Amino acid sequence: MTTIDMEQKILDKNDRIAQENRKRLDENHVFVVNLLASPGAGKTSTILATVRQLRDMFNIAVIEGDLASNVDSITMKEAGIPAVQINTAGTCHLEADMLSRALDVLDLPNLDLIIIENVGNLVCTADFYLGEDAKVMILSVPEGDDKPLKYPGMFQVAEAVILNKMDTLPVFDFDVKAFEDEVDNLNPGAPIFHIAATKDDGVKEWTDWLTEKIEAVAE
Amino acid sequence: MTTIDMEQKILDKNDRIAQENRKRLDENHVFVVNLLASPGAGKTSTILATVRQLRDMFNIAVIEGDLASNVDSITMKEAGIPAVQINTAGTCHLEADMLSRALDVLDLPNLDLIIIENVGNLVCTADFYLGEDAKVMILSVPEGDDKPLKYPGMFQVAEAVILNKMDTLPVFDFDVKAFEDEVDNLNPGAPIFHIAATKDDGVKEWTDWLTEKIEAVAE
Repeated sequence: MTTIDMEQKILDKNDRIAQENRKRLDENHVFVVNLLASPGAGKTSTILATVRQLRDMFNIAVIEGDLASNVDSITMKEAGIPAVQINTAGTCHLEADMLSRALDVLDLPNLDLIIIENVGNLVCTADFYLGEDAKVMILSVPEGDDKPLKYPGMFQVAEAVILNKMDTLPVFDFDVKAFEDEVDNLNPGAPIFHIAATKDDGVKEWTDWLTEKIEAVAE
Repeated sequence: MTTIDMEQKILDKNDRIAQENRKRLDENHVFVVNLLASPGAGKTSTILATVRQLRDMFNIAVIEGDLASNVDSITMKEAGIPAVQINTAGTCHLEADMLSRALDVLDLPNLDLIIIENVGNLVCTADFYLGEDAKVMILSVPEGDDKPLKYPGMFQVAEAVILNKMDTLPVFDFDVKAFEDEVDNLNPGAPIFHIAATKDDGVKEWTDWLTEKIEAVAE
């Protein structure tokens, strides 16, 4: 009689590769944040603002995920940031093997932080673990305060939530209190940072949180 | 010897059901528009503005697709519009069988126009034919003018493109000419309507286009 005394968790292909990514990142003490948001929520602007705050403290690289085009990686390179473009050729989210190939071309031993800009999508990106340390969700004020009700999964998987384009609050009917209450319902205790990325407003609170995480991994 | 002299196009399950939907809609002379957009681009506001323009001319119903919640169908019903809510339970797009079930509860013989609000998503929704007459893509100014480069598929499948939140143009760095040129590259000749849905600005040009389509089907 054979006794199976240990649960053999069957990892699918994505999760196996994600674990390999995780191992490489651990070995190199690199912190990886996977940014999730709608198209146009300001992922690229948030990355640029984050890098402006942290580039004197840490070595940073950016991985840009898009269906097509390389406009974002060009923007990053113009800002002097090492950047890898992943074109998913129609796939609505990044997968672990795409990250794996991006890690191949980065100088991991000399990096402290990798920021992944996932495909703009409030649904599919939440489901894929890439091996990252944290998913962070960005919502922008113009999108409306009801988005946690409509896209709860994204807000549940995020370690932190960034509310971007706060400078446009006077132009839009956005109830910050209602938004924050609903995020707290879905993900109790997750920090919510208010920023206007293009103006560097409020970014330091977010990067202070991130700095703690990066330093914990670097030790 | 058997000769297969006709290509047997194998329709997958979605497309078979979409064809059944199509047949029911044809029989009832109902025009169906499937609205695609990012989360927060203003699909709901655009529907409300469209209904304000057309409700005296046509009998209209709305089908609301969301991962979760019924906030949009409540909004529609408060505006006196027959509305069916479809919760996709995590699926990032509507599928033909979901539309089929929604059609079951609508009074098709007495309808002229059904507006479908798809799940907010600039990727997956483009790939699924539901049996609709036309897909229409809404982009909003705050999302940025580079979206056709990053999400080309959506702009290619759309019969028309609506650029919403035009009233916020002074607040955002959005190059209308560059946007329109790129849409025209992807989808030559597709009309592009400029609207501010919450203010009813520019909506008539869009609803005039839609009216022509509805009347062609009603004949």
